[in-house]
Amino acid sequence: MTTPTEVPLPPSQRARGDESLIIVMRQTATDADVQHVIDRLEDIGAEAHVSRGKHRTVIGAVGDREIIQQLPWEAFPGVERAVPVLKPFKFVSRDFQEHDSVVDVGGVPVGGTHFVAIAGPCAVESREQLFASAEAVAKAGARILRGDAFKPRTSPYSFQGLREKGLELLAEAREEFGLPFVAEVVDPRDVELVAEYADLIRVGTRNMANFTLLSELGRQHKPVLLKRGFTATVEEWLNAAEYIYKEGNHNVILCERGIRTFETATRNTLDISAAAVVRRLSHLPVIVDPSHSGGHRYLVAPLTRVAVVSGANGFMVDVHPAPETALVDGAQAILPTEFAELMVEVRALAGVMGLEL
Amino acid sequence: MTTPTEVPLPPSQRARGDESLIIVMRQTATDADVQHVIDRLEDIGAEAHVSRGKHRTVIGAVGDREIIQQLPWEAFPGVERAVPVLKPFKFVSRDFQEHDSVVDVGGVPVGGTHFVAIAGPCAVESREQLFASAEAVAKAGARILRGDAFKPRTSPYSFQGLREKGLELLAEAREEFGLPFVAEVVDPRDVELVAEYADLIRVGTRNMANFTLLSELGRQHKPVLLKRGFTATVEEWLNAAEYIYKEGNHNVILCERGIRTFETATRNTLDISAAAVVRRLSHLPVIVDPSHSGGHRYLVAPLTRVAVVSGANGFMVDVHPAPETALVDGAQAILPTEFAELMVEVRALAGVMGLEL
Amino acid sequence: MTTPTEVPLPPSQRARGDESLIIVMRQTATDADVQHVIDRLEDIGAEAHVSRGKHRTVIGAVGDREIIQQLPWEAFPGVERAVPVLKPFKFVSRDFQEHDSVVDVGGVPVGGTHFVAIAGPCAVESREQLFASAEAVAKAGARILRGDAFKPRTSPYSFQGLREKGLELLAEAREEFGLPFVAEVVDPRDVELVAEYADLIRVGTRNMANFTLLSELGRQHKPVLLKRGFTATVEEWLNAAEYIYKEGNHNVILCERGIRTFETATRNTLDISAAAVVRRLSHLPVIVDPSHSGGHRYLVAPLTRVAVVSGANGFMVDVHPAPETALVDGAQAILPTEFAELMVEVRALAGVMGLEL
Amino acid sequence: MTTPTEVPLPPSQRARGDESLIIVMRQTATDADVQHVIDRLEDIGAEAHVSRGKHRTVIGAVGDREIIQQLPWEAFPGVERAVPVLKPFKFVSRDFQEHDSVVDVGGVPVGGTHFVAIAGPCAVESREQLFASAEAVAKAGARILRGDAFKPRTSPYSFQGLREKGLELLAEAREEFGLPFVAEVVDPRDVELVAEYADLIRVGTRNMANFTLLSELGRQHKPVLLKRGFTATVEEWLNAAEYIYKEGNHNVILCERGIRTFETATRNTLDISAAAVVRRLSHLPVIVDPSHSGGHRYLVAPLTRVAVVSGANGFMVDVHPAPETALVDGAQAILPTEFAELMVEVRALAGVMGLEL
Repeated sequence: MTTPTEVPLPPSQRARGDESLIIVMRQTATDADVQHVIDRLEDIGAEAHVSRGKHRTVIGAVGDREIIQQLPWEAFPGVERAVPVLKPFKFVSRDFQEHDSVVDVGGVPVGGTHFVAIAGPCAVESREQLFASAEAVAKAGARILRGDAFKPRTSPYSFQGLREKGLELLAEAREEFGLPFVAEVVDPRDVELVAEYADLIRVGTRNMANFTLLSELGRQHKPVLLKRGFTATVEEWLNAAEYIYKEGNHNVILCERGIRTFETATRNTLDISAAAVVRRLSHLPVIVDPSHSGGHRYLVAPLTRVAVVSGANGFMVDVHPAPETALVDGAQAILPTEFAELMVEVRALAGVMGLEL
Repeated sequence: MTTPTEVPLPPSQRARGDESLIIVMRQTATDADVQHVIDRLEDIGAEAHVSRGKHRTVIGAVGDREIIQQLPWEAFPGVERAVPVLKPFKFVSRDFQEHDSVVDVGGVPVGGTHFVAIAGPCAVESREQLFASAEAVAKAGARILRGDAFKPRTSPYSFQGLREKGLELLAEAREEFGLPFVAEVVDPRDVELVAEYADLIRVGTRNMANFTLLSELGRQHKPVLLKRGFTATVEEWLNAAEYIYKEGNHNVILCERGIRTFETATRNTLDISAAAVVRRLSHLPVIVDPSHSGGHRYLVAPLTRVAVVSGANGFMVDVHPAPETALVDGAQAILPTEFAELMVEVRALAGVMGLEL
Repeated sequence: MTTPTEVPLPPSQRARGDESLIIVMRQTATDADVQHVIDRLEDIGAEAHVSRGKHRTVIGAVGDREIIQQLPWEAFPGVERAVPVLKPFKFVSRDFQEHDSVVDVGGVPVGGTHFVAIAGPCAVESREQLFASAEAVAKAGARILRGDAFKPRTSPYSFQGLREKGLELLAEAREEFGLPFVAEVVDPRDVELVAEYADLIRVGTRNMANFTLLSELGRQHKPVLLKRGFTATVEEWLNAAEYIYKEGNHNVILCERGIRTFETATRNTLDISAAAVVRRLSHLPVIVDPSHSGGHRYLVAPLTRVAVVSGANGFMVDVHPAPETALVDGAQAILPTEFAELMVEVRALAGVMGLEL
Repeated sequence: MTTPTEVPLPPSQRARGDESLIIVMRQTATDADVQHVIDRLEDIGAEAHVSRGKHRTVIGAVGDREIIQQLPWEAFPGVERAVPVLKPFKFVSRDFQEHDSVVDVGGVPVGGTHFVAIAGPCAVESREQLFASAEAVAKAGARILRGDAFKPRTSPYSFQGLREKGLELLAEAREEFGLPFVAEVVDPRDVELVAEYADLIRVGTRNMANFTLLSELGRQHKPVLLKRGFTATVEEWLNAAEYIYKEGNHNVILCERGIRTFETATRNTLDISAAAVVRRLSHLPVIVDPSHSGGHRYLVAPLTRVAVVSGANGFMVDVHPAPETALVDGAQAILPTEFAELMVEVRALAGVMGLEL
């Protein structure tokens, strides 16, 4: 390492492994501590690139990231911290695939320049309620219908959904109004059932890290709409997508829906930057949910407009014919007439952005 | 409402329902808006106590909280916000039961003045590793063994546990060292299996709001250790406990394990106040997990000491015979010798606090 | 309180005071505890509206909010919690003034349908750097120039600004390019100096709760641009605006610039909902800072577009002729050419929104 | 860089500069991008240690951290991110001084094994109130009196303190009860005044990043108690301490007082781990404020006990003879009798920990 700065190696001379991890040693680390780390790296077939400063020695670990990043480096004597260089996700990253993935949802393309409006009631409550909502959103220009048959609820005393009956109603509405539909699955034992009916299966925010559920969804073939956990970083969210992707199901759409912060004026804080961040890190499409992030009806229109110009590939909003009577999340549902007005703005903004609606 | 302040009603004249919700109307709300809310409350059998100020009218809703708190009041015209008076949980609250619950875990009491030390490896990796750890923690004074056979992992490329084989090893260690054990369940389909082996079933932080799993656990009879979601408020955590409790399983122990904050010097931020907050709001026992909150070995001792004097009913720490080789969370495991030293301090502090270890 | 629900009082019979606070008593509160609170309310000239449920008594306090909200109600025996009904801010609220305030910044109107683009370097580094940036942003359509002469920096070893020399250069640039300018003030002792030069005085995020500085700014006449503290709620931010407003300076513009959350992919999380929330709660104009919220150059364009359609009244971005050489925040500055391209999109989106740029 | 792993350099061959920063290049970075970074590092007198993996090139920058960490590396073409190796603070770090600093506060040592109890009213309201509190806390064993004469308040309508009159009363109480006192300074223009009276000058949480104030405090000689900003990381807090330290005032005590999180059951979340984290990273003493973190009277005792065993060097609590009448923060003040009982527990726990009270 005599003259490391003078002659940058040509690509052909690059190490064969990934530059996976940087291990920073403490000021007080001994030569034996450094050697111990190096030895362990060699044991697992990795290379160690050592760089020594006045106060710290830093070791770059080059090799298979799945192996290197697993080891508990901070338990080694003399190690201050370990900083991953490569993200833990792989197949969903732009490094792996440069071009945008476009996911087909019952004939509707989502991703790239294909921008999608998804709308409908939060929960399916009755045929009448669902059909009123579906008819209105179809007419106003939505391309996918939303409506849940299974609802995970914070309070055990809340309405939990119509279950299979709800899925049947959604399938009828699909026939009637020509809209494929998205519905949530909560229990891994219901995956098969929901997949039988729905065109797009949603993983709710509380289940983003339910790895059992994610694995099941990876082993079936319907596209998956993966909501961000309201306390998940973008990196954790992409890790969750990787769970599905690596099992063989490559049809994953991400959905930003607000994160938990100290602010209480809104139900959650819509992290609108996440759309652009995801598009930079991953090839998967990402949409925005203005209803559940804001939690108030008056925020649905501004947050939907924001979604259109943010780099996202679509949005999903709650539309209810009579929000006052809604069994779930009525405070954030908009009326069919409000949705129709909103779609006028959406079309104009999508036009400016060059998006196909 | 002419002279409301002069003659407070004696308890006998109290309304029959709960004081459940306060509805604050906007400055711009009309008399019709106010009346509309009142009418709806009467429809559902509740009383409306109306109080008018110069800028705002406030309506107190008295009646069955499960019904009143479900309605989407913020979707009503003229409503600014609705503030719950009573918490949504009921059976797990101190309002419902004044005295401390004591949960029996394979003969070890947890709760009240019974303070418990739980220790062992994060994951069961092998017979040798488990037994080395179990022997050491038993000798140092732990009363319950920890060790997981199923591990939900953020990255799909990480070690996921020995599954049933792990449970068998734990059962052997129980025989050998006389310690009941706690193990995590991840999938609702594994509840029966884990319940067959374990003395205490743990719900991990990522599953705190997995209501499917909670309901299953409420329908079996082994005690449950419910970790706080790392982004759950205390209220949400108690709601999760209510899910289990209302199904008939009253043996629930809570476990604080750190919450997600902006601080990055620790893996999570141990919310030590939560122990005292839970003890005030609920009759259930609560313990603390110093290993997974801090995320660093050097924090285990101070955070364990802190747990002893915080009002908590116990603690749980990762002890590994060789942290460097740990397949899961090695960076935060302590050595058997460190655990033995720590238990000396724990006993002294418990003595000051009048706790039975 | 015999039949409170039947005859809502006409406005003429409303209490003369504000409905200021709701005091929730514990389940265990005695009649004496309730009476003690009522007595104290009467002492301070307020009315107490008492409502009793089965488990809780609730007392509505009607009277002067500044007096009622000051008292430490939670220190009173038997009190569980006190919930404010009216916000603590008053003059900056929509309750106080229904129509939008429009602030005049050196001839440029900000507020209502007047949408403003503010651009320039983060810090003034030299005449050359400032003039290159100013010329470019003026040409591309910015109406106000930004540039700081005083920089509060996290590290004591960072560049702290050119001070008065920087203000002189900004004044020269104003002459040269016809743009009024905004500059930050950090120290209350510099208010007079900055006010002498600048058209709009900025309070930085770290000083939002520097009440000494706010009071000084309230007592001079130049308009103030009040950035949101990166950990302030919208309510605290409006309280800070109230500090300035109540001293007599009504020319306050708010600036959302991202809040601190657990997400690390961005420097801060732009709380885009805040624009709509502020517009609902207050009559003051609000703008957005895409540069300092995202912290990365690639996020400036999407977050600026988002600002245009969010309900905000403008935006402010860092433009630097050579970001690599920037002494402050170069990572988030865009090039003059990038700004010009961005302004094309901004104009198109503003057109859709009916905003005057 | 042919065989970097084989021969770790002996310390004598270490680079002369600090290992300051790691620059991670994008997958798409060209050789020219890499060379451009290397050239810039050489321009500023630093060494570049280049390590190339299959997907990423990583450059370790060795040299003066104040210079290297200033540059906007993320604005350079092809740079993905820059990770600092050394913390930005220097003199307050354990790297700089290994042994604990002990600060003398009017004859009372704080730091190392010297544990201190600080108590008194939040704000000085009157001679009677202050003296009642001071007498009680002195008798119970507090060694330093607290009491503020200047109060920064969130609402402009709240009590702002007795100002110089308050300082005079505190000085009288010092004479009467033999306790040195700590008081807050809010405005840099008041530093001289407060320094004239107080034994220890407090910087409040809202002013932790008020660099103007910090610099003034660094240029006078009274010790400073620096509260953590409620949204500051430990690293930012130590940077703030560095501001004071580098100006020549080495008598800095840190004070953890809770951070802002999503939890609302407490006013703030006491980050008790911070005591141990600070003791590891820095040689400065650190104390804990149980009153302002919890925000409720019932939390003061558990959080004080927790402080004693956490590794902290002391604690500070609000004691008020009549909390109901307190003008500031009455809800979290404890009574003199409660303080006396608490001190019994504190002494017992300090005994276990080997601390001198």
